[in-house]
Amino acid sequence: MVYIGIDVGGTGVNVGVTDADGLILRREEVPTLTGRPYEEIIRDMGHCALRVLREAGFREEDVDSIGVGIPGIADQRTGTVIFCPNMGWKDVPLRDELRKYVMKPAYIDNDATVAGFAESVCGVSAGCRSSVFLTLGTGVGGGIVIEGRPWSGFHGIGGEIGHIPMDLDGEPCSCGNSGCLERYCSATAVIRMGRQAMTVHPESMIFRLCGGDESKLNAKMVFDAAREGDDVAMKVFRRYVNYLCKAIYTIIAFLDPEMIVLGGGLSKAGSFLLDAVRERIPRYLLYKGLPYARVEIAKLGAEAGIIGAAMLGKKPV
Amino acid sequence: MVYIGIDVGGTGVNVGVTDADGLILRREEVPTLTGRPYEEIIRDMGHCALRVLREAGFREEDVDSIGVGIPGIADQRTGTVIFCPNMGWKDVPLRDELRKYVMKPAYIDNDATVAGFAESVCGVSAGCRSSVFLTLGTGVGGGIVIEGRPWSGFHGIGGEIGHIPMDLDGEPCSCGNSGCLERYCSATAVIRMGRQAMTVHPESMIFRLCGGDESKLNAKMVFDAAREGDDVAMKVFRRYVNYLCKAIYTIIAFLDPEMIVLGGGLSKAGSFLLDAVRERIPRYLLYKGLPYARVEIAKLGAEAGIIGAAMLGKKPV
Repeated sequence: MVYIGIDVGGTGVNVGVTDADGLILRREEVPTLTGRPYEEIIRDMGHCALRVLREAGFREEDVDSIGVGIPGIADQRTGTVIFCPNMGWKDVPLRDELRKYVMKPAYIDNDATVAGFAESVCGVSAGCRSSVFLTLGTGVGGGIVIEGRPWSGFHGIGGEIGHIPMDLDGEPCSCGNSGCLERYCSATAVIRMGRQAMTVHPESMIFRLCGGDESKLNAKMVFDAAREGDDVAMKVFRRYVNYLCKAIYTIIAFLDPEMIVLGGGLSKAGSFLLDAVRERIPRYLLYKGLPYARVEIAKLGAEAGIIGAAMLGKKPV
Repeated sequence: MVYIGIDVGGTGVNVGVTDADGLILRREEVPTLTGRPYEEIIRDMGHCALRVLREAGFREEDVDSIGVGIPGIADQRTGTVIFCPNMGWKDVPLRDELRKYVMKPAYIDNDATVAGFAESVCGVSAGCRSSVFLTLGTGVGGGIVIEGRPWSGFHGIGGEIGHIPMDLDGEPCSCGNSGCLERYCSATAVIRMGRQAMTVHPESMIFRLCGGDESKLNAKMVFDAAREGDDVAMKVFRRYVNYLCKAIYTIIAFLDPEMIVLGGGLSKAGSFLLDAVRERIPRYLLYKGLPYARVEIAKLGAEAGIIGAAMLGKKPV
C-alpha cells in the first residue's frame, strides 16, 4: 500500500506519495493561489494527488489513506478545517471535499504536529514513542507525539508551545498576550536582540554583516557572527540559548518526552546551537543527575510535511 | 476482582481496597515513621495491605494488582523508586520488596499523577480521555492523563507543572530556578502576597483575620477576606486568579486536554475561585471563541491517592 501526504502552505501545496515507511516515492508542488473559493483549492489538491499517484506507478486502489497538514487547526472527527488564517479558511469541510477526488480515509492535522510526527516515523526521533518537535522560525511551533501518535489536543488547539507564557508582563505578542515563549525563542527574537545590540555596538560584526542596515539583518547573520567569535553577537547568542533552554526545560517539566527535536530555520545552525543548548540545560533540571530528554536537530527538513501527513493514516504498530 | 491502593506520605501510609470502579471498600492508615530502613516501611505497607484485604472479606487470589502513589518519581519498568525526598528514598526497589508480602503485579507512580488519574476514573473528570490535574497547595503539583492513562513522562519526571518557568528573573524557587509557576500559583504565593498587602494596609481584613500576626496568615484567610469584599484582599485574590489563569492557559496551549481539574487546599474555595477563573481564561486564548478545556474542582479529596494507586493496574478499556 502507498500513502498520500499533502502539505498545505500559503503559497504552495506539496503533494507526495510515500511507502509504508514514509519514503517519498514521488512529489509535486502546485501553487495555492489563496483567495480562491476553497472548493477550487481542494480540487487542485485532489487532481494533483491523483496525478502524482499515477506518475509514481500506482492506482487509487493501492492507496491506504490520505493525510493533510495545514497551518491551522482541524477537527479530526469531522475532517473540517476549523481555522487556518494563512488560507483565510474557517470551517472548511476539507475531508468531504477531498472525497470528491480520492475516495479514501482522510486525516487532517496541524502542520507542526505533522512535521514532528514525521520525525518520529522516519526522522531523528524514529523509534521514540514520545517526542516534542519545536520549529524555530518566524514564530515557534510545536508538534507533540505521545505513545507513537501525534497529539494536537482534545479540541485540536494544543501544541501551541510558542504561545506559552514565559514572562509575566513580557514582550507583547501578535496573539494579544505578552511574554509568549516565541517572543524569546524565534528567529524574530534573535533579530530583535541583534538589532538592539548593533545599535549600541556599531563596531560589532552583526553591524558589518548587514551593512549597517538593520532591516537587512537576519538571524543567520547574528549566529554567524557569534560563531566567528564576535563578542556582541556571542552575547546575543548566549541570551537566546538561555531562553531556548528554558523553553526546552518547560517541555521536560511538563511532558518529559523521550526526545525533543529542534527544527525550523534556526536549527540549521546545527551543532553550534545544539552543543550550546545541551551544555546549558542541566542547570535548570529539577532532578539533577537523572536521565531526561535527548535534544536533537530535525533531519527531514521540508519533506517532513508530506511524510507526516502521509503517515497520519498509518495504523499504529 | 479487587485492587489494592497505597498512598505513601511522609507522615502516614494510607492503604485501601477498591472494586474495579475505584470504590474504596475498606481502608486503613499506618504511620510512615520515616528514618527507618525502607524494608521496614514497606513491610508495614505489605502487612497493612493484607490486613485491609482480609477485613474487607477478600483473599489474596481476589486481588488483581497493587498500586502505589509516592511523593517522588519512579521507574515504572523496574518498579524502583528513583527519588523520594520526603522519605529520604533513593533507588528503593519498592516492587521487589512488596512482592515479599503480596505476590501480585505492582505499579508505582507519582502521587499527583495518581490523584489526577483517580479523578479521571471516578471523579470529576470521569469519562474524559485527557485531563490535567493541578494540586494547589504548599507547592503546585501536576497529574496528566492522556488517552485514559496516567502520563508521568518517559523518564518519570514529567507533570512537574509547578516548576515550569513562568517569569524570566522572577521569584526565586526552592528548586534553584527562579520564576517557577508554583511561586505564583500555590497557597504559599497567596500567603506571600497577603503578607505584603497587610503590611501596607493594616486596615485590611487580612490583617484582622490573622490578628496582625503575619506568621499566622494562611491562604484561606486571604480568600475569606476577599469573599467578604475586602478591597485589599480582593486585589490579592484577583492577582492570584490572574496567575492561575496563565498557568491554566499554559496547559491549554501545550496539551489542550479535555478537562483541567483544580485540587489541593486552595481548591476548597470552590465556586468562588472557579467562577473567577472561568471568567478570566478566555482573554488569554489563542483561538478566541473555539472550544477549550473545561475547568472543574476535584471531588475525590484525600481518597484520590488510594483510588488512583489502586486503579494503576486496571487494564484500559
